[in-house]
Amino acid sequence: MALLRNLFFRSPGRSRLCLSSIRANNAILASFSAKNIENGNVHTTQIQRDDGGKVDLAAEARKRKKDKPNIFLKIINKEIKADILYEDEEVLAFKDVNPVAPTHFLVIPKKEIHCMSAATEADIPILGKLLDIARQLAAQEGLENGYRIVINEGKHGCQSIYHLHAHVIGGRQMRWPPG
Amino acid sequence: MALLRNLFFRSPGRSRLCLSSIRANNAILASFSAKNIENGNVHTTQIQRDDGGKVDLAAEARKRKKDKPNIFLKIINKEIKADILYEDEEVLAFKDVNPVAPTHFLVIPKKEIHCMSAATEADIPILGKLLDIARQLAAQEGLENGYRIVINEGKHGCQSIYHLHAHVIGGRQMRWPPG
Repeated sequence: MALLRNLFFRSPGRSRLCLSSIRANNAILASFSAKNIENGNVHTTQIQRDDGGKVDLAAEARKRKKDKPNIFLKIINKEIKADILYEDEEVLAFKDVNPVAPTHFLVIPKKEIHCMSAATEADIPILGKLLDIARQLAAQEGLENGYRIVINEGKHGCQSIYHLHAHVIGGRQMRWPPG
Repeated sequence: MALLRNLFFRSPGRSRLCLSSIRANNAILASFSAKNIENGNVHTTQIQRDDGGKVDLAAEARKRKKDKPNIFLKIINKEIKADILYEDEEVLAFKDVNPVAPTHFLVIPKKEIHCMSAATEADIPILGKLLDIARQLAAQEGLENGYRIVINEGKHGCQSIYHLHAHVIGGRQMRWPPG
């Protein structure tokens, strides 16, 4: 069981709202295992807590690694390997390394938008394209029984990587409420 | 405690994929209360089940009321009242009548797109606008600590109204996984 280190990286100081939103909460660790990302190698991390595990994880990681660029930029720049499903000049889609369902992939803009609240009206075309690529890939991945698209914003949303991303989750019955 | 009747309406037969995806599952009712929507009056419905309550609800409602237009078209056409947060010629946003958090509203296109899988590349501008209006309204509603945007597709996604809609949920810590 690896130590919690080098898990999530953030680029510093681009959005005050984003930065202010990932303060740690006081949830208690229930169980713990780890995925480290170091020198391009990905190991497994899972944290189960009473609540908000991803939030704590992001806050803890930020304390340690806030001087490093976020992992999604490293994936875009091919500095870290990912299981890429789709790529063009504006969008990248790849499998989530911590899947919560049989199918779980992320769709991200290559443009560095830290979070939903940091987007502007000028980003409407890329926001629309993220959903359209999500739709096309969901069909390609055989999710004909349905799926859920999730965008997390800030602490309350459980955003753990501060590069805008849409989760596409399927292959099992999703429950309600959505977290 | 009201009977389950007249809760969700669907418009018939526009998308085979949508229609095929809301078959009932075998989840057991754990507790039940109801919101009926009838003659413009809205009453309270909540269903808690072992899993997928919204899916069952939609499937059951479809059996009863599949000949009626979906409730979101009635809200757009002002045949049913809603607590509207925003409206322009393309988009409508209003509070969810079954909130799962202190803040829970929906953003929908006025164009009749039954579900995410029924969208096309031509819908990219309206998809982007849905997210942008979600972002703006989240700020307006004071969700500076974050929020979650959720789009449900078909049975596995728990889609209960077959008119494309983005849930915006905040005001409390969201958990992971998202359902």
